[in-house]
Parts: sequence; C-alpha cells; structure tokens
Amino acid sequence: MGSVTVTPDQEGVLGQEFTSHVIQSMGAETSPRLREVMGSFIQHIHDFARETQLTMDEWMMGVDMINWAGKMSTDRRNEGQLLCDVIGLESLVDNITYNVAANSGKPVTASAILGPFWRADTPTRPNGSSISFDTPEDGQVAFMHGKVTCAETGKPIANAVVDIWQASTNGLYEQQDPQQQEHNLRGKFVTNENGEYSLYCLRPTPYPIPNDGPAGKLLSLLHRHEWRPAHIHLIIIADNYKPVTTQIFDEDSKYLDDDSVFAVKSGLTVKFVERKGDPKAKLELEYNIALAPADK
Amino acid sequence: MGSVTVTPDQEGVLGQEFTSHVIQSMGAETSPRLREVMGSFIQHIHDFARETQLTMDEWMMGVDMINWAGKMSTDRRNEGQLLCDVIGLESLVDNITYNVAANSGKPVTASAILGPFWRADTPTRPNGSSISFDTPEDGQVAFMHGKVTCAETGKPIANAVVDIWQASTNGLYEQQDPQQQEHNLRGKFVTNENGEYSLYCLRPTPYPIPNDGPAGKLLSLLHRHEWRPAHIHLIIIADNYKPVTTQIFDEDSKYLDDDSVFAVKSGLTVKFVERKGDPKAKLELEYNIALAPADK
Repeated sequence: MGSVTVTPDQEGVLGQEFTSHVIQSMGAETSPRLREVMGSFIQHIHDFARETQLTMDEWMMGVDMINWAGKMSTDRRNEGQLLCDVIGLESLVDNITYNVAANSGKPVTASAILGPFWRADTPTRPNGSSISFDTPEDGQVAFMHGKVTCAETGKPIANAVVDIWQASTNGLYEQQDPQQQEHNLRGKFVTNENGEYSLYCLRPTPYPIPNDGPAGKLLSLLHRHEWRPAHIHLIIIADNYKPVTTQIFDEDSKYLDDDSVFAVKSGLTVKFVERKGDPKAKLELEYNIALAPADK
Repeated sequence: MGSVTVTPDQEGVLGQEFTSHVIQSMGAETSPRLREVMGSFIQHIHDFARETQLTMDEWMMGVDMINWAGKMSTDRRNEGQLLCDVIGLESLVDNITYNVAANSGKPVTASAILGPFWRADTPTRPNGSSISFDTPEDGQVAFMHGKVTCAETGKPIANAVVDIWQASTNGLYEQQDPQQQEHNLRGKFVTNENGEYSLYCLRPTPYPIPNDGPAGKLLSLLHRHEWRPAHIHLIIIADNYKPVTTQIFDEDSKYLDDDSVFAVKSGLTVKFVERKGDPKAKLELEYNIALAPADK
C-alpha cells in the first residue's frame, strides 16, 4: 500500500539486462531465423536509443514518420520503402541478398526484385519496337540493343526476358502520371536465337524522388537533395540462369556521386553514342548482359 | 557502350565505407542533434542488416509492417507506437528521457507524456466522485485516494492535477468501445489544500493489446501473448514540479513478469485492500505521489 515515490526504475530498464529480457521473451517455437533477425534488430534499436539518449519527443517523431509513410503508401507508391532507400538500406540489403545468393546457391526470389515502379503485368513487345508512346518534346529517343550471354561459356542465351522500365523526362513513371498512357516506357523483350534484344527508349534524365512524404521530409531535414541520376531499370530472367535486377546509369548524368537513394554501383554506368542513318533515333546504347548459371 | 557483367559491386556496398558514405551525405547545415541521432540510427540499421545478412524478402516484410502500421493508425489508435512497444522501445526511451531530464534539469515536455489512450480533453471531476459511468457486472469498484507531496520537503502540494485513465473489464478504453460513454473511466482530479485527491474507479483487469495489426502479428510470430497486467494510467502535474507519467500495477495481477509491452517497473505495484462501511466500494487503494521540484 502506501507511498510510492514515482521514479522510473532506471537501472533496470536502461541497461542491457532489459534488452536481454525483451529478446528472451520470444517463445520457444519462434523460427530460428526470425529469432536471429528480431534479436539483432531489438539489440541494435535499443543500443541506438541508449547511445543517442533518445527522448520521447524524438522517438515520437520517428513513430509519426512511420505512420505517415504507411498512410501515403498505395498500390502505386511505397513510401516505407522510399524511407529505407534514402538511408541506403535497400541498396545495402539488395547487395547482401545477391551476395548470399551467390555464396549459398540459393536463387534470388521473385519478390526480392520488385521495386516501387516495376509492374508485374508489363506487356511483352517485339524486338525493335518502341516503349515510348508519348515521347515528350524534350525527350531524346535512343536505340537500345544488346546480347544476353552465359557468363561462363559466353554463348548467347535465347528466350531470355529483358524487362525494362524508365521514367519520362518529367521525372514520372507512367503509373504516377495521368498524362502518360498505360505501360508507357516499359516493356518486356525476348531475346532471339542469337541472344539479341532491341528497342527504342528515351535517353533517361535525372529526376527527384517524391518529396511530399516522410522520405522527402527526412531529406530536407538532412539538407540533402532529392535527385536521382538518369537511369533505366532492368530485370533479366532466363531459364537455368540467376535472374538479375539492376539499374544502368548514363555516365554523363548529374548525381552519379550523390544519388539520393544510393543505388549507383561501379560497373553500371553506360554511354549513349550518336546513331546515324536511323530516322527514329539519334542516339544509341549497346548494353550486353552476362548471366551466371543457376545452381543445379 | 560495352559489355557489362551485371554483378553488384559487393565490396563497395557491403562494407562500412558504404555506411560512412550514407552518413556523410548529410548536409553541413543539418542540426547537430539530428546528425547525431540519424548517424547512429543509420549505423545500427546497416550493422543489423549486415549482421543478419538480411535478405530483400525479409526487408520487404519489415516495410510491409511499417506501411500496415501507418494504415491502421488513426486519432484513436497509434499502431506505429504499439509496434515499438512490443519490442520494449517505448519503455526504454521513456526511462532514458526521465534519466536525461533528471540529470540535465530539462523538464519533461508535454508531448513526452502522451500515450495511445490518453486524451487531452479529459474533464476535471470533483474529488470523491466516480469515473465509472457504465460499471460492468464483473467490475469491482474501488475507492482510490492519496496525497501529492513535495519529494524534497514532504509538504503537501495543493492544486496538483491527477489525470487518470483506465480500461474497462472488457479490456477496452472508452474511445475503443462504442458501448462506453464519452470519457468513461477517465478524469482529472485537483488536490485540495492538504494535497489530497480521491475518486471511485474500477479495480483494473488484465487485457490484451489489439492483435488485428502488425504489432499483434509480430507477437504471434514471436510466440508471445498479447496481455498486459492490470494497471491504471496516471499523469501528475503541478506548478513548479516535474510532471510524472506513470502506470500503477495491481500486485495481484497476472502478467506482471511478462507484460506484452514491458512497462512494469519495480516500485509501481500497488495493493487493493478491503474497504468497510462504504456502500459504493468494497475495495480501497491508497496511492501517494512525491513530485520532484522543477529546476529553476
């Protein structure tokens, strides 16, 4: 009964014993992998709070950002993902995943390769056709072509699917932009018997990531810009080979060194060159892809 | 131009240099505190991903949980907060905040003391009145009373505000439950010249936190139960004293050792005793509060 001086039990809750208690509260039947992941997550989040002496106000700002991200997210926009992107987390996890797959022989799964603007229902188009149906006045059409080969033997891979998507010169993907027609600037191309694919696309241009949500707010608070360097997204899939998700960057683009989502990797820059004798395009991009065989 | 073997630049993005690059991308004008907090957060989140070799699938499950939390959150429910609660983060940050305030003389701010079910517009009620307007059949009414004093001098504090709220026996706070009337089981009581407050409330009962969102999903994945021990929430505010937010726990309650949100602290358990000669209540709870003077 009686008198209680209301002083939080600081020793108990401030220390590592508290963190251990939280981690050990996981039930015995918890999957080993989830136990590993959540144990590490709880440890790091608690250490972060202790290290910075995080206050309730600051923590609540973080909670508000998380809730705001969820509220803004739709089928067409994933703000939680974007929040992770601006702190480099997706880029890091993407590389870890490839590294794990490469070392363990586990194939990279389809869900690992979904980005915020990729669409599952992208139509397959004939080689040599264009993905630009609403070419803007400031758009530069480029003929993109290349060969998909086996990284081990160098032999061409037929029937590989090259899935491509890009933003228009206004910085918007078609699902963000009511002015663009359905599936504009995206398409799947199937390689021929020589492993070749080809299409007309736009020379990509830099664009800012959306700044009307928590990711934009965070960038602003960190005094960072929102721009991404000019790039084209690609997924390349072929039977018996490891699929690859990537972005290729125009080597003449701004923001290669300070991509707002840290996706630029060495070896992924490409050069657009002059194309002659083609009324449909004044630029050309050759982009060849070597796929590693899948593990048996 | 050229042939590019699409292999992520693993060395570069997997290591600490990448994390340093992300942290150093903060602009020069970033506030020193935000730089400290975000620098530590980015470091720990990246270390977590490296330590667990987090995969894209696992990361995307986390993103989905964050977005789900935001979508479920309303004026009456904060699922982002609840997600933090089940990993012990709010309890930890709460204690850090009190500790920082105690050491630095910085007063605990009002926004630090808002919980998911507290309401700013709670009515002030006369001492000796009841906060239970829809007493359920299985509810046990208790007379709660006590004195607010100065922790240094022991003198009573008049005009202190004791703000109290509790769930009903069905586990729901009034704003969660259309069957309860507005402001049921909550009220503010102002101490008299002797520092005394008094009211009738319910003996609290254990209840599960909501399990229809990501916090419940996480508990289920971790094979943990959703229950909280029986408790009453309090905020005590008085001019010239440090405000206190707390919960008091019935020492006879279940779940004191495994509160689903880790809020139980030593020194915060109380004992309900038999009350005689009061037709309105068969139980009594004396709860006295000592407040620390605010820094000048």
